[in-house]
Amino acid sequence: MKLAILGTGMVGQTLAGKLAELGHEVMIGTRNAAETMAKTAPGPFGNPPFKAWKDAHPAIPLVTYAEAAARGEIIFNATSGGGSLEALRLAGEANLGGKILVDIANPLDFSKGMPPSLTVCNTDSLAEQIQRAFPKVKVVKALNTVNALVMVNPNAVAGGDHHLPICGNDASARATVTELLKSNFGWKHVIDLGDITAARGTEMMLPVWVRLMGTLKTPMFNFKIVQ
Amino acid sequence: MKLAILGTGMVGQTLAGKLAELGHEVMIGTRNAAETMAKTAPGPFGNPPFKAWKDAHPAIPLVTYAEAAARGEIIFNATSGGGSLEALRLAGEANLGGKILVDIANPLDFSKGMPPSLTVCNTDSLAEQIQRAFPKVKVVKALNTVNALVMVNPNAVAGGDHHLPICGNDASARATVTELLKSNFGWKHVIDLGDITAARGTEMMLPVWVRLMGTLKTPMFNFKIVQ
Repeated sequence: MKLAILGTGMVGQTLAGKLAELGHEVMIGTRNAAETMAKTAPGPFGNPPFKAWKDAHPAIPLVTYAEAAARGEIIFNATSGGGSLEALRLAGEANLGGKILVDIANPLDFSKGMPPSLTVCNTDSLAEQIQRAFPKVKVVKALNTVNALVMVNPNAVAGGDHHLPICGNDASARATVTELLKSNFGWKHVIDLGDITAARGTEMMLPVWVRLMGTLKTPMFNFKIVQ
Repeated sequence: MKLAILGTGMVGQTLAGKLAELGHEVMIGTRNAAETMAKTAPGPFGNPPFKAWKDAHPAIPLVTYAEAAARGEIIFNATSGGGSLEALRLAGEANLGGKILVDIANPLDFSKGMPPSLTVCNTDSLAEQIQRAFPKVKVVKALNTVNALVMVNPNAVAGGDHHLPICGNDASARATVTELLKSNFGWKHVIDLGDITAARGTEMMLPVWVRLMGTLKTPMFNFKIVQ
């Protein structure tokens, strides 16, 4: 399957690396490939600059947002939440078409330091903003409630016995993404919360997630819903 | 121990009933006892009017917020979030003193129907508003992330193998509340998130909680944090 990953940070790198390793045709989209490759500073969480990762993954092309969106059959939004709408505008409505967009981004605002607040919440969400801006796209909110390493390897946490909430307006798109997460990454418990307004809830899990990371001193955790 | 419960809804009834059953001296505070007893309409979730519950629990006195706060050694805020600050003002700063206030309320706004939004979130929380309004009170946010029946009987869900986050500025108060929850209700996993700003995260869990209740078709669930 041709999969486009928009965003060159930790999440984009981790997803692209894993999906390529699994045999998919993966491409990474960025605003300006030359500028992305020229960056030498480490990422905001101390991760190496993109070039170091790219040099280790020469088979995965770095292209523009627009080219990635045009070529991908399913598109992953792994850009930072504050820049997602702009990145998707650059990807282009025609290139996004009626494809599935797996929205992993969280609308985190780090401008006032740690902990981050959300740029949108409560009565709206980033996923809804994206869905409104691109009404034909099948937005499915998923993976935003776990660390990048857990996204692609849920079995690294408690043998995979924990939950991933997903939501989106298109039931068939939710089913496709659920199957993709299960068959590629080994997710065992994907919980379908229905339409895209559920993203308010899943994006609002971030503040307690960040706090728990500080308490547990690891990002390698998740929530298991028990009854 | 003398325990004051502020609020006569489902949460107040459930807590008061259980704590009295365990042998504590429990009193319930309300704005106006005569008015509360005169109400004949069912509660917002179809629960019986307070009088029906009170008739079944004649030994638990219904008093004013101020009297309950004056007599209680530990005070539970089980009022609706939108009315909590006003209820606590009526309880009175002098009566609250430097006591522990277990803040269970969620700042839910049902004025636009279901699902509720939050009246405060993201860069502030109800618990912080209460702490600022009553700086001497030792506010401990707890129990707000589960249904009333789970609060007092965590073993009813997955044998109690799930987590309750608590927070507050006073470490000793957090420890006292943790012990109270463990010894009275049987909570096994109380996770201490530190100072009261963590309440932003735990109050912001409500939207996903409400959505999950709809998906699971039961309020009898909770989150287990797995690593």
